[in-house]
Amino acid sequence: MRGDSRATRERLIKAATQEFAAHGIAGGRVERIAKAARSNKAQIYHYFGSKEALFDAVFDALVVQATQEVTMDPTDLPGYAGRLFDGYERMPEVSRLAAWYRLERAEQHGPIRSIVDSSLDKIDAIGRAQKEGKLPDRFSPAELLTLTLTLAATWTAQTPEYHSVARGSGYAGRRRVITDAVAALLRP
Amino acid sequence: MRGDSRATRERLIKAATQEFAAHGIAGGRVERIAKAARSNKAQIYHYFGSKEALFDAVFDALVVQATQEVTMDPTDLPGYAGRLFDGYERMPEVSRLAAWYRLERAEQHGPIRSIVDSSLDKIDAIGRAQKEGKLPDRFSPAELLTLTLTLAATWTAQTPEYHSVARGSGYAGRRRVITDAVAALLRP
Repeated sequence: MRGDSRATRERLIKAATQEFAAHGIAGGRVERIAKAARSNKAQIYHYFGSKEALFDAVFDALVVQATQEVTMDPTDLPGYAGRLFDGYERMPEVSRLAAWYRLERAEQHGPIRSIVDSSLDKIDAIGRAQKEGKLPDRFSPAELLTLTLTLAATWTAQTPEYHSVARGSGYAGRRRVITDAVAALLRP
Repeated sequence: MRGDSRATRERLIKAATQEFAAHGIAGGRVERIAKAARSNKAQIYHYFGSKEALFDAVFDALVVQATQEVTMDPTDLPGYAGRLFDGYERMPEVSRLAAWYRLERAEQHGPIRSIVDSSLDKIDAIGRAQKEGKLPDRFSPAELLTLTLTLAATWTAQTPEYHSVARGSGYAGRRRVITDAVAALLRP
């Protein structure tokens, strides 16, 4: 790809990330993305083919990569949850894009192979740690991974009603709630 | 309200529930709602004023009421989480509508008073149970309510990638994971 087309593509991905995080696929406007990226609709369709394919490119560039760059040590699931929380706090677009993906795109798109594979790797690693007695086996490996991911997203999933009730705990406090809760699941 | 207009209004709410659960507000089509309810767009605007107001009516009729009809005994938070899970399983529209609400509507709409009030009541009840020594106080009342609500929604928040990895646990198994996880938070 020539340098100027690569730069255009990158500007489009960046503008589309903001647009889709805010409005989702049905609500996202290709015109607004084109304008914010100093491009035009024809160029978007030339590079990506469709609004859905542009969303997939954004999702892959941000969410899939963010998910995979946080590594998991099966003997430190609280630490893993804490680092996932750090990522959600640093990049609020990630949880919004993941939520839009679940609602608007997942069924049509089908499972993303790289995510399935990395989940299976994590489940295997948890299973081995359980067999070696390094982790309690009250929950199955898949259940333990699910609970850890769910708790890591505790604060991103809350409604504004809830935020108006539970305000007051800062970053460190919210992080501690998550790591303590995962640790509680692991007590023998 | 006359009987026939009440019946029309009910058909509209029912059709709008399906449409908004599937497509959200931006993606939902007033034409499709009108057709499914054997009504027309003019009638929808007459009864509800706008697409957003129709969404609010749906949300209030289903999600706000579903949230409030599950009562909480502070000394049985695992049971409360289990009954919330039962509700999500029985009415999958509830979690989808709640997710659309968070993404598309909450900021503009502002906190829903009845939900804030019922959360504050629950937090008070948990705090009293902690003071009476009936509940451990490792987590604050608001944190404990948040964690319980988060864990109750464990399976609704998962992506299709995850479902393709973790299939196999039936209704009872998934319910047990939730109630066991909440119980683990409460062990001294």
